Amino acid sequence: MTQYVYAFTEGNKDQKELLGGKGANLAEMTNLGLPVPPGFTITTEACRSYLAAGSEPGELRVQVTMALRRLEDDLGRQLGDRHDPLLVSVRSGAMHSMPGMMETVLNVGLNDASVKGLAEESGDERFAWDSYRRLLQMFGKTVLEIDGEIFSKGLDAAKAQQGVDTDVELDVESLKGLVETFKTVIREQSGAEFPQHPREQLDLAIRAVFDSWNTERARLYRRRERIPQDLGTAVNICTMVFGNMGETSGTGVAFTRDPASGHGGVYGDYLVNAQGEDVVAGIRNTLSLADLKDLDPSSYKQLLQVMRRLETHYRDLCDIEFTIERSKLWMLQTRVGKRTAAAAFRIATQLVDENLITMDEALERVNGAQLAQLMFPRFDADADKNQLGRGMAASPGAATGHIVFDSKTAETQAQAGQPVILVRKETNPDDLGGMIAASGVLTSRGGKTSHAAVVARGMGRTCVCGFAELDVNGDARTATVNGTVLNEGDMISIDGSTGEVFAGEVPVVASPVATYLESGLDAAVENIDDDTADLVRSVDRLLSHADSIRRLAVRTNADNAEDASRARHLGAQGIGLCRTEHMFLGDRRVLIERLILASDQAGREEVYEELLPLQRQDFVDLLTEMDGLPVTIRLLDPPLHEFLPDRTELSVKVALDRAAGTADPDEERLLAAVEKLHESNPMLGLRGVRLGLVLPGLFALQVRAITEAAASLRARTQNPRVEIMVPLVGSVMELFLIRDEADQILRTVEEEQGVELGIPIGTMIELPRAALTATRVAEAAEFFSFGTNDLTQTTWGFSRDDVEGGFFATYLDRGVFMVSPFESLDVDGVGRLIQIAAEDGRRTRPDLKLGVCGEHGGDPDSIHFFHRVGIDYVSCSPFRVPIARLEAGRAAVLG
Amino acid sequence: MTQYVYAFTEGNKDQKELLGGKGANLAEMTNLGLPVPPGFTITTEACRSYLAAGSEPGELRVQVTMALRRLEDDLGRQLGDRHDPLLVSVRSGAMHSMPGMMETVLNVGLNDASVKGLAEESGDERFAWDSYRRLLQMFGKTVLEIDGEIFSKGLDAAKAQQGVDTDVELDVESLKGLVETFKTVIREQSGAEFPQHPREQLDLAIRAVFDSWNTERARLYRRRERIPQDLGTAVNICTMVFGNMGETSGTGVAFTRDPASGHGGVYGDYLVNAQGEDVVAGIRNTLSLADLKDLDPSSYKQLLQVMRRLETHYRDLCDIEFTIERSKLWMLQTRVGKRTAAAAFRIATQLVDENLITMDEALERVNGAQLAQLMFPRFDADADKNQLGRGMAASPGAATGHIVFDSKTAETQAQAGQPVILVRKETNPDDLGGMIAASGVLTSRGGKTSHAAVVARGMGRTCVCGFAELDVNGDARTATVNGTVLNEGDMISIDGSTGEVFAGEVPVVASPVATYLESGLDAAVENIDDDTADLVRSVDRLLSHADSIRRLAVRTNADNAEDASRARHLGAQGIGLCRTEHMFLGDRRVLIERLILASDQAGREEVYEELLPLQRQDFVDLLTEMDGLPVTIRLLDPPLHEFLPDRTELSVKVALDRAAGTADPDEERLLAAVEKLHESNPMLGLRGVRLGLVLPGLFALQVRAITEAAASLRARTQNPRVEIMVPLVGSVMELFLIRDEADQILRTVEEEQGVELGIPIGTMIELPRAALTATRVAEAAEFFSFGTNDLTQTTWGFSRDDVEGGFFATYLDRGVFMVSPFESLDVDGVGRLIQIAAEDGRRTRPDLKLGVCGEHGGDPDSIHFFHRVGIDYVSCSPFRVPIARLEAGRAAVLG
Repeated sequence: MTQYVYAFTEGNKDQKELLGGKGANLAEMTNLGLPVPPGFTITTEACRSYLAAGSEPGELRVQVTMALRRLEDDLGRQLGDRHDPLLVSVRSGAMHSMPGMMETVLNVGLNDASVKGLAEESGDERFAWDSYRRLLQMFGKTVLEIDGEIFSKGLDAAKAQQGVDTDVELDVESLKGLVETFKTVIREQSGAEFPQHPREQLDLAIRAVFDSWNTERARLYRRRERIPQDLGTAVNICTMVFGNMGETSGTGVAFTRDPASGHGGVYGDYLVNAQGEDVVAGIRNTLSLADLKDLDPSSYKQLLQVMRRLETHYRDLCDIEFTIERSKLWMLQTRVGKRTAAAAFRIATQLVDENLITMDEALERVNGAQLAQLMFPRFDADADKNQLGRGMAASPGAATGHIVFDSKTAETQAQAGQPVILVRKETNPDDLGGMIAASGVLTSRGGKTSHAAVVARGMGRTCVCGFAELDVNGDARTATVNGTVLNEGDMISIDGSTGEVFAGEVPVVASPVATYLESGLDAAVENIDDDTADLVRSVDRLLSHADSIRRLAVRTNADNAEDASRARHLGAQGIGLCRTEHMFLGDRRVLIERLILASDQAGREEVYEELLPLQRQDFVDLLTEMDGLPVTIRLLDPPLHEFLPDRTELSVKVALDRAAGTADPDEERLLAAVEKLHESNPMLGLRGVRLGLVLPGLFALQVRAITEAAASLRARTQNPRVEIMVPLVGSVMELFLIRDEADQILRTVEEEQGVELGIPIGTMIELPRAALTATRVAEAAEFFSFGTNDLTQTTWGFSRDDVEGGFFATYLDRGVFMVSPFESLDVDGVGRLIQIAAEDGRRTRPDLKLGVCGEHGGDPDSIHFFHRVGIDYVSCSPFRVPIARLEAGRAAVLG
Repeated sequence: MTQYVYAFTEGNKDQKELLGGKGANLAEMTNLGLPVPPGFTITTEACRSYLAAGSEPGELRVQVTMALRRLEDDLGRQLGDRHDPLLVSVRSGAMHSMPGMMETVLNVGLNDASVKGLAEESGDERFAWDSYRRLLQMFGKTVLEIDGEIFSKGLDAAKAQQGVDTDVELDVESLKGLVETFKTVIREQSGAEFPQHPREQLDLAIRAVFDSWNTERARLYRRRERIPQDLGTAVNICTMVFGNMGETSGTGVAFTRDPASGHGGVYGDYLVNAQGEDVVAGIRNTLSLADLKDLDPSSYKQLLQVMRRLETHYRDLCDIEFTIERSKLWMLQTRVGKRTAAAAFRIATQLVDENLITMDEALERVNGAQLAQLMFPRFDADADKNQLGRGMAASPGAATGHIVFDSKTAETQAQAGQPVILVRKETNPDDLGGMIAASGVLTSRGGKTSHAAVVARGMGRTCVCGFAELDVNGDARTATVNGTVLNEGDMISIDGSTGEVFAGEVPVVASPVATYLESGLDAAVENIDDDTADLVRSVDRLLSHADSIRRLAVRTNADNAEDASRARHLGAQGIGLCRTEHMFLGDRRVLIERLILASDQAGREEVYEELLPLQRQDFVDLLTEMDGLPVTIRLLDPPLHEFLPDRTELSVKVALDRAAGTADPDEERLLAAVEKLHESNPMLGLRGVRLGLVLPGLFALQVRAITEAAASLRARTQNPRVEIMVPLVGSVMELFLIRDEADQILRTVEEEQGVELGIPIGTMIELPRAALTATRVAEAAEFFSFGTNDLTQTTWGFSRDDVEGGFFATYLDRGVFMVSPFESLDVDGVGRLIQIAAEDGRRTRPDLKLGVCGEHGGDPDSIHFFHRVGIDYVSCSPFRVPIARLEAGRAAVLG
């Protein structure tokens, strides 16, 4: 028989999955001998079973009966007994904390008879009736789903009637009246009497907690926090202790040390004569915990002992909830305390300094997401703001500037020293200059992996995208949002960490951690307060430790010397992906257009001749910047028509010109070329290695430029370490054919220049077939670099451009994904292919170097997976390099 | 040390891969004790090694020396000896026969000295000089690559000078003169003397044979025949025997039985006083082999014995080459004889009737490609034809009719009894009616998997596509090809088996095999000649045997009752794929348009209401036709915008209308919808299960229609066996969500109608992720059906629409593929995914049913693979059902 119920004496803190966080920690505290009111936990498994079947598993009721009887026997009281009633609390407790999301019912067991027993036994009639009205209120709201407002109004009416301001002032008669009022509310709203039978109350409360797992707000919360929707919650049934038994009673929350700095001390709040929900509800002002020292020195001393005990046991900052019932301390909850990003770093090093944890363990206490938060500037929290709305948080940071609607204006104004925000419906590769010039980018269309988002993240530019309420009219140089008209030149502020958009200029606070990462510790700790310097030093210590123990190298994706330089300062150990297509935009686009329009090989060769010195210089610049470090250059990947105008737009233009009798032969020729190159699914068309095989000379040009660049640097006694990467390979034959061509050029240049360059040639693994036939592909590849973006697209059969702003919302909502597989690697599908390719490839070539150059290279969860399957390096955008370094170190600790 | 050389006494017929076909069979005959001139074979491995390194492996020369010495010792003569020279032939012989593709050099060993020894030893000076001039001619052409015309002209000049008509009439002096002429030609053309050293001749000849593997024509031939480009050829060095030693000598070719009917008898040609190449060259008229009986009764008798011996040994029709040297018979070659498709079937059953082979073995002797050939009508070979050109052979058959340029006209004229050929640039789903009405389809664009090709093959309609020389002007109702103008109404004939296009009407010969398959044996053998009846009976016997032993079931892909009925007659055991999107074309398209334009759920529900009875009737018709057999219905798969007009065309139209001030609000609304649904890669967008999850009610409508149709048939005591298939699943969660919805509808309808239908729900496996996570997917699927077309597209990352008419030509040419992976399954990549999914899926659900519904279900090679990995059924277009039946039977035999 499945065990659905565990007494607090049976569990321990490692059973969070089964008992929930609260239940596991109650059990742990019980076993530590701390004063925990006795009780038991119903497992998450029971909840899952209930949710799947729509009713409780049969064994559950029986097991609850047994546990309840044991509790009653131990305490010598019975649930809801009319003379000396046992009362219990019924509280949710899932594996992952979901504050405020789930339900609690206190004082279960009270009814018209037992309220009198409680009054008698406690000698406090007021307390008993107050507890009863609380039960009715919580039960009505939580279990019977009656609007809480109705009860609040009843309470207000009672206070008005008696002429008092607070609940505690209500006298017995008022409370008795309120109980009657509430029972009437329940009868009228739910169509049935409040259940007088204690066990019925208990069963309904348990069921209400189960049901609260699937409320809309809970689902939404889990989606945001990437918590699986199918875990379920545990339910804790705990003997009631009362903080509302007069002035010697109370309830409080506390931290075992300063949750901001990590320094030791007493931090918490206390409320006299109250039950737990009063603290949270903020109905009355709380006292500082230190005040308890005077109110109840003995309980205070005991509390400090308990906290020290807990911290030693958990070896981390804990937060706790406690109740004092007539000067007796009871522990109601503990857990490892949540903390801000800054606190996490501070606490981790503080605990090391106190010899409570090792540096390895300290790494477990922080993560890349926290580091990312610390790296970005923020808007001043205290500033006045005029919020226009909220788009998607696409690339974090806080940016403020004058609105511009096109790239050219952005560049001009930026050169003139004006900060600008580029506002577009969506961006395309031609906007690159404007995006570089702008302080931030705001688009009305596209998701987190739209062009704007990806490029902005890549260059660390703040970006809010998909701000759908914004109606951008680039031609008119205006944008409208909910009736507000924004003109070019107006100031606007965007928060890429929250997606918020504000009118006007909001003051920005710089990040000292970013300064440290870019310019080093000494530069960062100048002129800042001690607390902040302390934080920077903590980050430095943890990042240095991560660097010293990680096996994964961290490279960067960079297409130009500027990005490369920035990444190198941020700790990149090379370039894992240099995309050469970005070198053909702007002024050079016309060359590619000529290449496409060339009617024969001679025409194409002419273009190659012109491209060669330009490409060579691109690579000289890049390799100079990364001297001594590996630089992987990918041969041209996108389909050629990406360099031509949009088919529909051009067709319309040509048709209108024809109709107007102003047909332009150049444009007609261009349209013919666009039509010829048109593909219904360009992602799956003529690109990458296919283009290299079909268009003679294209790859040869690039290989020659790379090789000559390397040779010229070698002549200057530099150490260029370039690697050539062939994109979109599906079959080893493709790679063999390209290699044959490339090897010949390599040999020729080496002979011409009299050097040995030993340039390795490898391939992207971005098609399922390449992964599935890795045994063969490795015959022709000296390295594999997993292009996880494309691999995700083909493995799932969806194009991120099309789907991420589309059905992904539904998929996240309905639980098909926990998180977009473009954000965090899909381990079961795409990950399995990576593992197959890694194993098979190394079987053929044991020293095969394995890298990752998709966006997942900068994602914490994905980095841990890459570590586990034996990848040698990840490559990510410059700004994610420190995050990847930290996570790679953590992966080495966590295994 | 690798053994590169095998004496004829060392090999056997099963070593074709190593010794080539010719070498293996020479060895086999030698070991059978047949009169084979002694010799040895250089392996294909030596050739591969030569081709890879660009020079012979060192051991090869040594091993040739050893083999040659052994030969010389056995015969007591030495190669090129000046007194009694040993001469040898050097002949290619690859694993797969490549007639006429590769090189041969005879009489190696002759030079200025040994020619005299040969004259002396043979007592025939003329023979010796004739042999020498042959060597010079062949060596010059083959080894030294001199234009053969120059030698032919020299020969003609010599004949003219002596005043004779044929070679045999040339006297010794003329031949001596010719030898001098040829030596001069060689000196002048190659820049060096003809090599006098016998061993040098031999080594150069061997190398020439190796090189001939990679000639342009050989590569082309292999591509067409799907022979791998990397096998290499063996080289056979064989003691020369001479058919040109006067009137008691000669050379011939023969079959061991009638190569057309398979009946016993003597079939062959003989040429007196000639060497082998004379027969092939057709220089003189040959005698019938029967004439040899009178010329040389003893050799004739021996030849008949040898042929009987060979046939008993090979248990099949053999063809042979032999030479008689002064009344002594020598066997130069044998192999299992090539045959026509009809002969293959006839011979196979004939051999069974003679108790030479079993029925299982008979199945090995025929194949699906041959059966396909027999199924299609053909143009009368003897008719006069005016060929306009050649497109791609997209769907076999011979069709003739009046040209029409649009679907409507095609339907009208066909109803009026006119045969028509639909001529279009390319077809789209709206042309379906026209394609059904037409006798054949001709397009100027698109490859073998273009819409026209796929649909035509599906319905067995003759189709030639990608006829690029054809310039179709649908508006003007004309088409032009190389200057010839074709008008609507002109007669045209197209051959879908060859791609040929003819002007005018070419008489068509019907296929009796097709009649048999469609209408049964009795109907087919009425009113046809005995030979043809014999063929039909052979097909019947072999197909029946295949049916009796095959494990793979064969279903069909059919979307309507008509196709279903046809397929059922052709032996289909159910429908493996019914595509419901075809049910929304034509008149119903407007409903889908309304669905798309609907602004809310209520609007959509209205459309569903209208669609429900229509869909239900579709399924009633289909299930009635397939009563008692399984019918798998796929829920709607394509993206919705496929039902809307093309974006570019509509944009142009709207822009022009706006410019002209005639803007149509309906059209504007439509354009807005098109823009909203536009995807840059529709293949990877919102379709299949994604659409089902995003558009509430769509799948529910289809499930309800299916269920109600099945229930109504059950009420009529029929036996509907419908299965519901969910397309494009990538994650088990998608399937669970659809199942939840579908199961509820199933239960509701079952309760409403009081029946139990037990309709299984399964999924397409057409995305790599579905295959990779099959363990999970099988939890929610009662069957898998592999959609191998889409799976090929996503595994390779190419869209067949875009690439097959594009870079595939280059890929086939450069050997990346042997055959398009859309024609024959890519076993290494896509096949590996299928195997993973089959194994993992059955681990979760041992009784999981596995089917294949992509086009590969009808491809012979692919069918054998599906058999091996444990697939339960294949589903193919109706016309490929008999082919699949035969191949499934063969797979059972071949394992």
